[in-house]
Order: sequence, then C-alpha cells, then structure tokens
Amino acid sequence: MIDLRSDTFTLPTPGMLEAMMKAPVGDDVFGEDPSVNLLEQRMASLFNTEAALYCPTGTMSNQIGIKAHTQPGDEVICEQSAHVYIYEGGGIAFNSGAQVRTLEGDHGRIRAEQVATAINPDDVHKARTSLVCLENTSNRGGGSCYDLEEIRRIREVCDQHRLLLHLDGARLFNALVAKQQAASDYGHLFNSISVCLNKGMGCPIGSVLMGSKDFIRRARRIRKVLGGGMRQAGYMAAAGLYALDNHIGRLAEDHNHAQLIGAALMQTDYVESLLPVSTNIVIAKIKAPWKPAQITELLKAKQILALPVSPTQIRMVLHLGITPEMAAITVDTIRNLKLDDL
Amino acid sequence: MIDLRSDTFTLPTPGMLEAMMKAPVGDDVFGEDPSVNLLEQRMASLFNTEAALYCPTGTMSNQIGIKAHTQPGDEVICEQSAHVYIYEGGGIAFNSGAQVRTLEGDHGRIRAEQVATAINPDDVHKARTSLVCLENTSNRGGGSCYDLEEIRRIREVCDQHRLLLHLDGARLFNALVAKQQAASDYGHLFNSISVCLNKGMGCPIGSVLMGSKDFIRRARRIRKVLGGGMRQAGYMAAAGLYALDNHIGRLAEDHNHAQLIGAALMQTDYVESLLPVSTNIVIAKIKAPWKPAQITELLKAKQILALPVSPTQIRMVLHLGITPEMAAITVDTIRNLKLDDL
Amino acid sequence: MIDLRSDTFTLPTPGMLEAMMKAPVGDDVFGEDPSVNLLEQRMASLFNTEAALYCPTGTMSNQIGIKAHTQPGDEVICEQSAHVYIYEGGGIAFNSGAQVRTLEGDHGRIRAEQVATAINPDDVHKARTSLVCLENTSNRGGGSCYDLEEIRRIREVCDQHRLLLHLDGARLFNALVAKQQAASDYGHLFNSISVCLNKGMGCPIGSVLMGSKDFIRRARRIRKVLGGGMRQAGYMAAAGLYALDNHIGRLAEDHNHAQLIGAALMQTDYVESLLPVSTNIVIAKIKAPWKPAQITELLKAKQILALPVSPTQIRMVLHLGITPEMAAITVDTIRNLKLDDL
Amino acid sequence: MIDLRSDTFTLPTPGMLEAMMKAPVGDDVFGEDPSVNLLEQRMASLFNTEAALYCPTGTMSNQIGIKAHTQPGDEVICEQSAHVYIYEGGGIAFNSGAQVRTLEGDHGRIRAEQVATAINPDDVHKARTSLVCLENTSNRGGGSCYDLEEIRRIREVCDQHRLLLHLDGARLFNALVAKQQAASDYGHLFNSISVCLNKGMGCPIGSVLMGSKDFIRRARRIRKVLGGGMRQAGYMAAAGLYALDNHIGRLAEDHNHAQLIGAALMQTDYVESLLPVSTNIVIAKIKAPWKPAQITELLKAKQILALPVSPTQIRMVLHLGITPEMAAITVDTIRNLKLDDL
Repeated sequence: MIDLRSDTFTLPTPGMLEAMMKAPVGDDVFGEDPSVNLLEQRMASLFNTEAALYCPTGTMSNQIGIKAHTQPGDEVICEQSAHVYIYEGGGIAFNSGAQVRTLEGDHGRIRAEQVATAINPDDVHKARTSLVCLENTSNRGGGSCYDLEEIRRIREVCDQHRLLLHLDGARLFNALVAKQQAASDYGHLFNSISVCLNKGMGCPIGSVLMGSKDFIRRARRIRKVLGGGMRQAGYMAAAGLYALDNHIGRLAEDHNHAQLIGAALMQTDYVESLLPVSTNIVIAKIKAPWKPAQITELLKAKQILALPVSPTQIRMVLHLGITPEMAAITVDTIRNLKLDDL
Repeated sequence: MIDLRSDTFTLPTPGMLEAMMKAPVGDDVFGEDPSVNLLEQRMASLFNTEAALYCPTGTMSNQIGIKAHTQPGDEVICEQSAHVYIYEGGGIAFNSGAQVRTLEGDHGRIRAEQVATAINPDDVHKARTSLVCLENTSNRGGGSCYDLEEIRRIREVCDQHRLLLHLDGARLFNALVAKQQAASDYGHLFNSISVCLNKGMGCPIGSVLMGSKDFIRRARRIRKVLGGGMRQAGYMAAAGLYALDNHIGRLAEDHNHAQLIGAALMQTDYVESLLPVSTNIVIAKIKAPWKPAQITELLKAKQILALPVSPTQIRMVLHLGITPEMAAITVDTIRNLKLDDL
Repeated sequence: MIDLRSDTFTLPTPGMLEAMMKAPVGDDVFGEDPSVNLLEQRMASLFNTEAALYCPTGTMSNQIGIKAHTQPGDEVICEQSAHVYIYEGGGIAFNSGAQVRTLEGDHGRIRAEQVATAINPDDVHKARTSLVCLENTSNRGGGSCYDLEEIRRIREVCDQHRLLLHLDGARLFNALVAKQQAASDYGHLFNSISVCLNKGMGCPIGSVLMGSKDFIRRARRIRKVLGGGMRQAGYMAAAGLYALDNHIGRLAEDHNHAQLIGAALMQTDYVESLLPVSTNIVIAKIKAPWKPAQITELLKAKQILALPVSPTQIRMVLHLGITPEMAAITVDTIRNLKLDDL
Repeated sequence: MIDLRSDTFTLPTPGMLEAMMKAPVGDDVFGEDPSVNLLEQRMASLFNTEAALYCPTGTMSNQIGIKAHTQPGDEVICEQSAHVYIYEGGGIAFNSGAQVRTLEGDHGRIRAEQVATAINPDDVHKARTSLVCLENTSNRGGGSCYDLEEIRRIREVCDQHRLLLHLDGARLFNALVAKQQAASDYGHLFNSISVCLNKGMGCPIGSVLMGSKDFIRRARRIRKVLGGGMRQAGYMAAAGLYALDNHIGRLAEDHNHAQLIGAALMQTDYVESLLPVSTNIVIAKIKAPWKPAQITELLKAKQILALPVSPTQIRMVLHLGITPEMAAITVDTIRNLKLDDL
C-alpha cells in the first residue's frame, strides 16, 4: 500500500529506531530525562526562543499555548479552517473557555488588516480579544505557507492592540524548506510556537512547544493538569533529535513528489481543480457527479490510499514513507484510473 | 430627551409601578414568592411549555438554556451576529465550555439547509454539534422575524440529527405581534425559549426561560450556581405580570413609529440604505464620508439619542417610552438635520 | 407566623418600599442608573475601597470575587463549612475551575497558622494556592465573628505568600455591630468584600462587591458574562440606600432577641447544646432520640418556623421582621413546647 | 545509585526494550495501531470490562474517567490524600469543573458509611454528588490495599444513590498480588478503572483506562480534546504487553524488599514510626529534631535516594530496578547510618 492519507502515518526509519533504542532516559516529570532535555534545548536554540517543552501531541502543544495565553471568556482570532478550531475537538472552548472569531483567509492564511478589524472594542458585552493563532503551513489550505513579511505585519497589529500571537507550526519545517526561511526568524515573531515531530519529521509521536521561560514554566503546569507529563519520554524524544539531524533537508523531496502528483491530477477527467501545491499536501476538487469516496475507493483498489476531506475534495499527503518509485507509481495510477469501473 | 438608543432604557408606567409596589412577595430561592410563581405559570401557559423560570436578565436566561443543553467541547450553531455569540461576553465558552459555529444568514435569520450542512460528523477531531440557537426578532438583523414555517423546517433538521433548539426571544413579543403568530405555537418547536420582560415589555428587569419540567429543574440549579437565585424578586415579577396584561398589544404602535422613522431616514442625504424595518428597530447605514458618531451627535443636540452600532451604522429603537408626539418630532428632526454643522 | 428560618425572608418596611418606588433609575448596563451608582459610591466609601459593584445576589458577588482572583486549576483555601464551598452549588469549580482546600475552624473561623500550613509548594503536581476566603459572620458557625486582629494576621500570611483575600460578608453588618468594629477598617484588609443587602439589612434582593478600581472593572465583565448585568436595578438599589440609613443600628435588637431565644432553648429538655450566640443566629443541637424535623413541626403548629440545618441541628435566625413581642412569644413557646405530642 | 524515590523511575529491561522496538505500529488516532489495540483488548479482558483506552499518563486516564462521569458543578467524593485531589494539579476543577468533597480515611482508604453520609441532598444550594473515587493501592496511605468486601459495600452505596465509582489503580497490580485478588473481580465493581503501566509494571510511559463501550467511546473524545491522541504509540504499548507477560508476578519481590526495609527503619534511632507496609511503599516518620531532608541527604551520600514527602516523612518505593542485592545494601545502610554527621 502507498499510504497518502496523511503524513501522520509515517513509520520510523531503521536509523531513527536505533537512535530511540539507545536513548538515555529518565523521569521527565522530575526533569531528569536527558533526551527530552536535549531535544527541548535544541528546538529552543533552533527557533531562537528561551525555552521549550516536549508534549505527546501537536493538539496538546497548541491547546497548552492557547490556554497559557488566554482567560476564560476571551476571544481568539484564527482562520475559519484552522486546525485549532475545526480539528481539536472544540478544545479552545473545552480547555480554555475561550471563544473563537474566525476570518475567511486565502487558503488558510489571514492578513494583518483582517486581524485589525476583528478585534473587539473594550465593552462588557464583548469577549476580550487576546490571542491570534496562525497555522503555517495550513493543512486545509493545501499546505500553503506564509510570507515572513505578512507575519511581521500581523505581529505589529498584535503589538498595537496588546494581543498575543501563537503559531500552530505542525508542519512548520515544510514551510521553512519551501520558503527557504530561517527557523531563527520565528522566535521573536510569536509568543509561542508549536512544532510537530510526527508528520514530515517522521517521529512516532511528539510535538514541541516553544516560548519565553515564563511561558514555558506556566505551560509545564498546564501539561501536567492535562495529563501530558510523561515519565521516560526520552525514547520518543530521541526520535526527534534524530529527525532534526536527518529529516529536514529531505522534505524538499516530498514537495517535489507533491508537484508531480498535483500535475497528474490536473490532467485527469475526474479532477475539477487543485489547491495551489506549495509543500507536501495535494488537495483536489473532484468533478461532479463523481464523489470523493468513489475516487479513493478506486485508488485503494490500486494500492493507493487517499483521504476524502470534504464533500467534494480528496487529499494526498507526501512524507518520508513515500519513495520516488512510489510517487511515480502514484502518478501513473492517477493517470490511468478507469472511471468506467464506477 | 427622546431616547432611541435601545428599548432597554424604558421606565415603568405609573400603573406598572403601582402593581410592583403592591406585589405579594416571598423568598423565591425557597419557591415561596407568589408573584414569581404566578409569572412563571402564566408564561409557561402562554407559550405552551411545561414550566418556566424567572431570571434577572436575558443574558442569564440564554446562558442557562445553552448550558443545560450542552456539554463542554460541544458545538453550538447560530447566525454570525447572534446576541448569544457577540453580545454576551463570550458566555457560551465561559459558562458552557462550548464552541460556536457561525452561519451567515439573511438579516440574522438562518435556514434549515444551512444548519444541515454545518453539523459535524461523529469524529473525535470534531466538536460534537448539539445545539442550534435562533434569535427572533434578530437585534443585529434590524428586528427581522422568522416565518414559523422556516422554524418548523429547522426543527425537523434538529430532530433528524438529535440536536436541541433554543430560542433567544429577547424581543419575541415584537415578532408575535408583527407576524400575527400565536405564542402557543412556539412551545413545541423549541427545547427552550428565553423571553425578556425588559425591552418592549417595559419592565425594569427580568427575563423568563421556558421548557420542559426536567429542563427547568436543571435550569434552576444553573441559575443558582451563576448567582441568579434572587430572594423577594416578586416586585420585579409583578411588573412582568402587568406587562402581559397591558403591554403586548401596544407593540404595534412601536412598529408603526419605526416605519415612519425608517421612511424619514431613507429620504435624507446622509443615509445610504436601511435594513428592512419589520418591528421596532431601525438600522441605517450612514453615507460616507459622514460617520455614525457625527450623526448621533447632531441628533443629540436636537434632544434625540441614537446609537452607533458599527463603523457605518446607527440604530434607533422604538418602545413604550416613545409617544406618537415624540415619534413625530423625531421624524421632523431627521428630515431637517443640518449636516453643514459638521 | 413567626418566620425564623432565615433572615432571607424579610420583607421591606413601608419606608423602604416607598424609597424603592420613588427611586430615580436608568440602564445600569450603560452605567446610567443613579440609584445604583449612588449605592456603589456609598458602600465603597463606607468600607474604604476604591470602587463597588451592585449584584443581584450574594452568591453572585462571591463567585465574581473568586473568579476575578483566580485562574482555572488554582486552589482556594476556606473553612470546611464556608458558604462559598457548601451552599453555592459547586460554583468555585463551575465558574472558576478552581479547587477548594478546606480547613477545620473554630465555629467557621480559621486561624493564620492554619492558612500558612495549607499553602501548596510551587510544584506542577499541586494546584497553585492563590486565594483565601473568610466568612464573617459565619453562617454555619452560628453567626460567629472574627476579631480584626486575627484577620490582620491572616492578611500577613497572604502577603507573605502572595495570596489574595476575599471576604464573604453576607452578614458583615451584624459583625460590625456585635464587635463594634469600623467598616472602614475592612477595605485595606481584603482584596474584595461581598456584603448582602438582603438578610439583616432587609432589602428584597441585592449584594455589593467592593475592591480596587481595577478589580471592579474586571468584576463588571464577569457580572455581565454570568448574566448579572441588570437594567433599571435602581428600584432595588434604593432599598439598599434606605437600609444604610435606617437598618444598621437596629441589628443590635436582633442580637438581643437571639440571646433571649438561645437562653430559652438551653433550658429545655430537648436541646442538648447550643453554638455560642454572637449575633442573630441561634443553632441548637437537638437531644436524641428527638429529631430536628420533629421539633420544627411542633414549633410550626405553634406558628413558629425554624429550619433543620443538619441531621441533629435546628436554626433560628432573627431579623427586622421579628418584633420584641414576637421574640417574647417565641421564648414562651420554646419553654412550653410539649414533647408528649410526638 | 539505588533510586527509591519512586517507582516512576524504572527503566525498561532489555527484554522489554526489544519488544518495544519490534512492535508493529500504526496511527492510533485512526485506530490502526495493532500494538495499542492488542493492549487495550488484553487489559479489558483481564479486568473484565467491555473496552479499554491507552493513555500517555495515569493522570490523564484518571482525569478522563472523572470528566466522562461528571458535569461541571458536580461533587466528587474521595479520600483527603487521594492522588486525583492533591497530585493532579487541581485537574478535577480544571478539566471537569467539579468540586471535591474529601473524607478522612484509614491510610487512604474510605468506608461505605463515610461515603453515605457525605452525599449531598437534592438541593440547588448543594453541588450534585455524582462520583466516588477510590485509590488502590493508596500512595499517600503507604501502599495500603482495599479488601474487596469494602469495595462491594461502597458499590452498594453508590448504586443506592445513583453515584458512579472510579478506581485510580495506578498501582492496582500491587494490590492484586498482595491481596491475592483476581483482576476479573474488578470490572463489575467500578464504572471505570485506570491502571498505570509505568510504576511497578516498568514501562517508560502509559496508562490504560477501562470501562463500558459507551464510556470508552466518550473517553476517546476526551482524550483527543486533552491532546492525548498519539500516533504510533505502539512502541510504548508493546512495553505494556511485555509487562503483562513478565512483570506481574515479580511484584511480590518488591513487597518483600519493602518489608525488609521497613523492619530495618523501625529499628533505627531516627525513625519514630512507620505506616503499615502492605505493598511496595515504605513511609517512615522521622523522629524530631531530625528533618526528612537531613536523612535523605545522609542516605544520598551512601548512594541511596529516598524522597521527603511531608514535613515529617520520608518515602522509599521498591520496583523492578531494585535487585535483592540492592535491597540488602539499603537495609545495611539504613542500620548503619551515622547521625553524628548531621
């Protein structure tokens, strides 16, 4: 099977597995896991923040970030398709008691002007606007990336209105590679950054939350109360260390594969349009009267797994489990898919 | 001053004040206030529900209804300008830990088809959709009213998907009068109804929440924990009883005044457009380059108070404090407003 | 009926009712109710705080105070029988997401040393201790009062450990009268004070929350989101103004009546012991095998209402509805109660 | 170093590590991790429940259980030293908005009669009692175990009052071995059971929550919103499978070591008393004027780590990292500790 449903399905490479097995570990709740500590230090250093915190999942690192920045009754601004709003189980309300104000962006990306007009005045009738969340790359936006310049303009709006700014960087490494941006430019632009080590980085589990020392101290408390304070997490953190050394550069290959697959899809009869392919995600709108589930069934019969992600769209996500040969087979299969079988 | 900022500014009539002063009262936390008990019975009977609960404010009766119908992490569907979403301080998140999914309606009114497409599938990533809130009349929609037929269709969608349906009826009496609907038709269409006795009904404070006996039993608990369990509330409830007897029919007069004022506004140079006037609310879009605050200042100088409600709109609300003479003066003043003074 | 179940059953005197009905009022959500504004000013001035906020109930003013001082996951220290813990519907958890740490006090009063030992160390496993709540007088403690000296010592412990200090002063006026303390001494000792105008003060509803300007600004937001922002509340606030002028001094009479009734109870066969009578509350332990409900039934047959408050105790509360004659009848009835009837 | 601070410090044995690295894995959020699925099935089967859910930590599995069983504003009954109350960061309030009512037990164990008297009547003033939590073994009770008969009696009280019953079984395997109880007896006694695979079982991370299918379906939602839905968690789950096969029987050895160490401590000059040693935990009260931290410092100088757990107590916890030789050295060191060095 060629599994393109999500980059969350990656399995560790032999080298990563070996690194995991040899990891020095300890009780991280007591701060004694050397692999976790090293990963936190390396990530903080890479993204130019004071401190970092290892979390079991990206959902948890996002939710902790949002909780640490808000009070119950606050309002959080994000794009209408943001992962924190539509894919985290209503967590902003559940964990933080905060309300969401959504903006309609350009493939998941919002602009500084939109943020400025969405801020509530100081009025007891209105929720207090306190936080803006960006997602880079945007999952539902088809892997689109922000220009640093736009982020800087959003940061300025936040500063003018005393808002905090959180980055859901589940696939931030993809954005860095695609846009040739420096990780170190991000630390000063955000009050917190969440980056996944699963997905493109290929680790079994894990996410890292970054920010100031004071923020991470408070985040550590929230991680505990949510039940995210693990013991010998170093086995998993070691996979993250290995990924930092070995899996960043290779993301460009996933992006190339995505371009090839996107181009192939555009040439078929059953695809009406494609979201712009910027990184490792390909989202295609299926031409009526065909349904996404029909196409993914046909592909599955050819050993290729794709995911229906809306009533009209299918998604394919590239990752380190997909070799050039598998990408080529996928392109070939897409081109030769026989819709008569429907 | 002719105060048209809101119908929340009404003062009791002499008759109402006399009824308040003579009210038999008791400790309502112990269920011993005869005036509160009678008001609850009369409202339940009028709207054809099993039971009712007196609350200090419409915000509280809405928030109790939403809390009683949802779990933390649930998703509530409403129109994007719904009072429960934009004017209750983020209360759905604060009090219920629930997330809001907004729909773009027609002057604050949503359609059954929109509700149907906004319901989340059963998926751990997605908040559980559990409640739909309608607002009738719609405040930000300019006092627009629902047809009963559309409400019935929304009810069907709710039934199909096991959703509950709450009505923010802050100005429901205005809708009943304008649409010539029977209050008794509402009880079976909604799982809970909140109706204000302030606003058009002219009471100093108070709102009534209605629903099944089981719902009201749970609502009573929530009222207590929010701090809404008052003692000798009968003085205020008596105003509600008086209003039921004396203030419903006269709402038609407010609606007539609103029509006159709306027509006058449309004939001026400084109004670009008007939301359709259906009940007692008039919302006018001010023509650029004039600003709402400039117009309201000019009106104030002529003893008329209106409210800027957005960067381009002003609002005038009719109520029992506005006599035919005051309405006529307002019309006259609107027509003769000298913009040269700006 | 002589109703001694609670001082929440008081009805306004003719003078108070007249003051209510003549009150100048306005929309308090817009800050325009002169009676509410005046009451807030007078209370802040009396208790020597910067600002004050009128609330519909004492439960709400307590809950707002606690919410404004804590974060979700914090720990609040109070006596095990504190009203905020046992009689507010689990509100500290519901409204603030905070945990309660209870201390076993002396008739509801805790000591500075107890507070000091109950503060959690800074450890992610432990809830962050952030607030101490005192209750003066203590309802379940039988109306017991704090010495100012003990409060000062608790304040010092709070200052040393950066804790905030809230006073549930539902019956604070009783304590001031009984202990001959100055209201103005309280403002600097607490970060917030909640005082009821119902109960001993004889108003139908209402409570006032006091503290710094910044605190009250945040409290006003919380009042709104809880649904406590009423419109023409001035009718009720006017009762509070009347009570400040007319009902404080007379509390001494209630205290005298409580002494007389307590003494009478102690001389009967059916009372085993009495909590010390300090103010207007009398709590008697009924001698086995008699049950509290049996005694209150017998009293009811003689036109006297008392309340069973635990499996072994009955409570009688004095208030302005109880004249010297009624107190004398009560004493007489207590003495002559025939238990043979059981 | 002989690390007796906690059994959370265990490291995997070579056999466990090998099992981990050979584990078949998949994306558990999609239900596709075979190792996680197998572990959940085996645990449900062992404890005789319908279903199970793998969680990153015991705190999360407890918190999910409590959340799934309660509503905000409910009251949870537990012993005053329960882990869920004092060591989970205020999580019952933070995650569930529920209030805690503590009982003073016998070394962490409560009795059915105590539960019965702590249940609130149905009264809007009172939080709704809905859940009882037991802890077996009790950490702060010194590893004490419940008799099944007492649990059955508590279950009866819960059934009579429609309460649910959750078990914090972080060290339940220790209780099963010490009391020679059958795991299968537990499933019908509790509505949910949380069991740790860390601690005595020796896994790096992991806990399993068990209950009915409907309960686990709801628990899976809560796990997601808390951020506990991990991807290739099978590496960790495989450690759990290995522990079920290899590490249960050997717990008796830890218990023997605990007895030896307890006996040695009792014979010293610096220990005043010992909590009864029932399983793998030894808690000793240090004789004044010595302080716990002084004793743990002396022990540390001799390569033995113990933990001060209160102002007067130290704790030693046995686990699979402690060989008979290490236990013997510990006994010897305890006996020969020279207090003159202080």
